[in-house]
Amino acid sequence: MSDEPIFELRTDPVMGRKVYISEGRAGRPTDYAGFSARFDQQASSKQPAHCPFCAGNENETPPASMELQDDAGRWQVRVVPNKFPAVRQMQDSSLDGGPSANGTALSPDGAHEVIVESPQHVREITALSLAEYEQVLGVYRLRVRYWNETAGIRQVMLFKNVGFAAGASLEHVHSQIIAVPYVWDAVEMELAGALEFHKQQGSCVYCDLIARESSAGTRVVLENEHFLACTAFAGRQPYETWIVPKLHASDFHLIGDDELASLAELLHDLVARLQTCLTRLAYNLVLHTAPVGGKHADTYHWHWELIPRSTRLAGLEFGSGAHINPLSPERAASFLRNAKC
Amino acid sequence: MSDEPIFELRTDPVMGRKVYISEGRAGRPTDYAGFSARFDQQASSKQPAHCPFCAGNENETPPASMELQDDAGRWQVRVVPNKFPAVRQMQDSSLDGGPSANGTALSPDGAHEVIVESPQHVREITALSLAEYEQVLGVYRLRVRYWNETAGIRQVMLFKNVGFAAGASLEHVHSQIIAVPYVWDAVEMELAGALEFHKQQGSCVYCDLIARESSAGTRVVLENEHFLACTAFAGRQPYETWIVPKLHASDFHLIGDDELASLAELLHDLVARLQTCLTRLAYNLVLHTAPVGGKHADTYHWHWELIPRSTRLAGLEFGSGAHINPLSPERAASFLRNAKC
Repeated sequence: MSDEPIFELRTDPVMGRKVYISEGRAGRPTDYAGFSARFDQQASSKQPAHCPFCAGNENETPPASMELQDDAGRWQVRVVPNKFPAVRQMQDSSLDGGPSANGTALSPDGAHEVIVESPQHVREITALSLAEYEQVLGVYRLRVRYWNETAGIRQVMLFKNVGFAAGASLEHVHSQIIAVPYVWDAVEMELAGALEFHKQQGSCVYCDLIARESSAGTRVVLENEHFLACTAFAGRQPYETWIVPKLHASDFHLIGDDELASLAELLHDLVARLQTCLTRLAYNLVLHTAPVGGKHADTYHWHWELIPRSTRLAGLEFGSGAHINPLSPERAASFLRNAKC
Repeated sequence: MSDEPIFELRTDPVMGRKVYISEGRAGRPTDYAGFSARFDQQASSKQPAHCPFCAGNENETPPASMELQDDAGRWQVRVVPNKFPAVRQMQDSSLDGGPSANGTALSPDGAHEVIVESPQHVREITALSLAEYEQVLGVYRLRVRYWNETAGIRQVMLFKNVGFAAGASLEHVHSQIIAVPYVWDAVEMELAGALEFHKQQGSCVYCDLIARESSAGTRVVLENEHFLACTAFAGRQPYETWIVPKLHASDFHLIGDDELASLAELLHDLVARLQTCLTRLAYNLVLHTAPVGGKHADTYHWHWELIPRSTRLAGLEFGSGAHINPLSPERAASFLRNAKC
């Protein structure tokens, strides 16, 4: 690709979200150089004094919802209710409304769980073997299915925050699931965008994206039998990458075993490449899957969005909903393709 | 108010944005305590080696769009085109579209300016006298008016990023203006929410908010003849505060001199209180004003949103559009009311 800085206003193909690709901004001066180098990294390299997620400290978390055990009966992956939940557990539905302006205050009932992905104190999925990581994804599938089949739940979100700048509070390798009895606004916008595309074009917007991205090639990072990973055309942050199953499917939890192995391999490789390009930068990895009920089977297409966090959201983002990205997705894809893991 | 932790799902009265008020989360353990203490702060206390915004370094920025000078002809407030803009200057409209998936790539034309708010290297508006800060707001009014009257512009946003975590790259006291030939998504959502309320209730949703908040009192932080400052009912971050003119008006740049003086006084006091409660935490201050054209005069109501940045956006926020706020707006308002400046 050209060395000329790219300078475009792009809109996301699904939601229409605006992003300024402004490569000229990368060179601007800063008073915070020392901060930046430290802050964006995942954490210090030293072991914390104490970790509630390590094997042996099980009594410091609520009792497990499920455990995946090895032949000797030791847990390998452990799912526990979040001790400090954002939403209250469903049985605890005593809230009566609380103070209200003319906005509304609802009971925040639902579920908020933590998936501890190793009994050892490791910080990253790349420290797990591929077989171990495949087990973790297997637990994702089981747990997303469980909440999809729980009465009252309408939407499940599974996400991983890695590093301070990405909102993590503990560094032990883990993910979180939040399941709620409604559909979130950003998901509604995705569903609406996908539905609109389907009405107009008669096909799935993500299937269309796969075809176009494969053919263009400039944003493709990795590809295997079942999945395509490409930097997002209107990525909010440098290196934002979407991982999309090639076969149309709306619900992650219906994934087959072969696909699951294929996904583990691709995500493992992708994160290793990010570590090479970005020296252990903080990131979020978010599963996007259809709401409960099957209504979106034709129009929606499950996928992951991986969002490294190298730029900070500022006043423009909070006020406008648009984002500024100082590295073009094409250049980012090229760096990731060529990364030596 | 009660000492019991508040635990609610709230929706914003204008946009319907979801926020989990989850006070129980404030006590959760962290591996990043040292990070947090350092990185949420605005900056180090030491002077940078060099600053392009200081008096004497005018040749390091593009030529000024306007300057406010003292009697001796020295500039006090200086507006310059951003040397590293997110949007290209309007005259430079040679972009032909660029690479496209099925999203769209548009010319990002518009304007991006920096308002340097003092010739001295100070970091905060509280280091300016009230008279100096009133001059700065006067420049805001002139410059927002200028862009409102420029052919092709449909929306003007003025915002201030203070501190590293809020996205600032330079610490010298300054704000930014971005003016574009379209209306951003988040502004469209605000306009739609306000229009819907007006249709249903026959009144302005912000006027209604002022009446309710004044009467409830629990979220009021400061009040003077012309303005009310209250923590946002569904604040995205701890201490998020909205500053709303009591008299209905859709366009900031039509503000009168008395109101301007009143606004300067209130914002100055508010930021001083935040510094006391939050020891110089990073924050964004964003002006919300109607799009160009006067179509929203009855339904929209200009205001400022001040968003301290003490919690980091994570996977849930990116995936769902909802926010988690670990400090209730009522408790935050109480802290701010009682702060000793």
